[in-house]
Amino acid sequence: MIKAILASTSTLHNQDYLEYLVSHLPELFKDEEEVLFIPYARPGGISHKEYTAKAAEAFAKAGLKLKGINEFQNPVEAVNKAQGIFTGGGNTFLLVSELYRNKVMNEIKTAVRNGTPYMGTSAGTNIGGLSMQTTNDMPIVYPPSFQTLGIVPFNINPHYLDPDPNSEHKGETRETRIKEFHSINSQPVIGLREGSWIDLKDNKVTLKGELQARVFEKDKLPFEIETGTDLTDLN
Amino acid sequence: MIKAILASTSTLHNQDYLEYLVSHLPELFKDEEEVLFIPYARPGGISHKEYTAKAAEAFAKAGLKLKGINEFQNPVEAVNKAQGIFTGGGNTFLLVSELYRNKVMNEIKTAVRNGTPYMGTSAGTNIGGLSMQTTNDMPIVYPPSFQTLGIVPFNINPHYLDPDPNSEHKGETRETRIKEFHSINSQPVIGLREGSWIDLKDNKVTLKGELQARVFEKDKLPFEIETGTDLTDLN
Repeated sequence: MIKAILASTSTLHNQDYLEYLVSHLPELFKDEEEVLFIPYARPGGISHKEYTAKAAEAFAKAGLKLKGINEFQNPVEAVNKAQGIFTGGGNTFLLVSELYRNKVMNEIKTAVRNGTPYMGTSAGTNIGGLSMQTTNDMPIVYPPSFQTLGIVPFNINPHYLDPDPNSEHKGETRETRIKEFHSINSQPVIGLREGSWIDLKDNKVTLKGELQARVFEKDKLPFEIETGTDLTDLN
Repeated sequence: MIKAILASTSTLHNQDYLEYLVSHLPELFKDEEEVLFIPYARPGGISHKEYTAKAAEAFAKAGLKLKGINEFQNPVEAVNKAQGIFTGGGNTFLLVSELYRNKVMNEIKTAVRNGTPYMGTSAGTNIGGLSMQTTNDMPIVYPPSFQTLGIVPFNINPHYLDPDPNSEHKGETRETRIKEFHSINSQPVIGLREGSWIDLKDNKVTLKGELQARVFEKDKLPFEIETGTDLTDLN
């Protein structure tokens, strides 16, 4: 049975890193002594070590230990032995490339399906979908595949942004980009606003947080869903 | 000798498609009777035919004919015989995938190096750089490579957007994304604001348009350059 939190962002405006999620960590990781951290997305190019230290500080507030996958000699073994996994945000292309290079993409997928609790934020949430193809990130590196963990049977767009009606900018809006995704792909996409997350437990998939989320399905008009909405049958 | 216009956007706020570029078309394509249009990026999923009709309407205002590559049986032959090439905007991942699938990426590269005039807007400009890795687009399809035309020896970020100092959004700014690009890649990146373009002629590379552009080099602070700046030695 899958247990997971897939959060749009790690950090809310005027808050500390993971602050709004800390109170939910003990329930997700309750039986675990130590959680494995995947720092591969390296936001802003910081080192794995610096990133792990930052995440460990937040986890300590929930009484949990965190150890970076970079501290293990064998990443595959680290995943297989993990009692819980947290993948932080950053660049999704880099994250996915490193997961494949270290041969842990399928290992994490299997572990999560077998019940290892998983948390992702931003890029770490993007890979919780069927593919990373609704990321907002720049393709700074060429990954061997766009296929990801498929913890949920749809795609996620983290940091979802509503169109600005006053904008004079001619770059595509997020909604237009997701429409382009659906000109080629068929799975639904959830636009997760910052502060929202998808919760998986007891065989249920639920929208959490204070805001609505936006659901995009191929050839349909997008629509809003309220927090608490059961998404178990969305696919 | 390369002759090219690499424009940030096709359309300015409150203007028609290509309106601000139409007066520059006769100089770029002056000896040409018919320009080859590459509609592969298909903005918003429209058909190649619809997209070609839209572009042809704008080219007609400059007294030029435009024919879509989709109207030819053999795309490679179409490129080799082209008297000029215009690649429109849309999704860069789709554009690059289709250029490779139709085996014309290298053909266009060779044609442009041999003097066939080239114009790109948005995605069509992005591929004018060494790679498509500073695109803003979603990876809606998996291309066989991120390497592109290299009409200029650096990368381009079209639709460049300055950070909004009042934003409470925690998604990466454009500047942060380009910094992440430089954590892995070394070529310079030009952030081209809407209304700016890079002009190549007489062995010179020049910034054109009314606005400044922003130059990003690995391990250096980004800086602004004025319109008219000679970029011939940037690499």
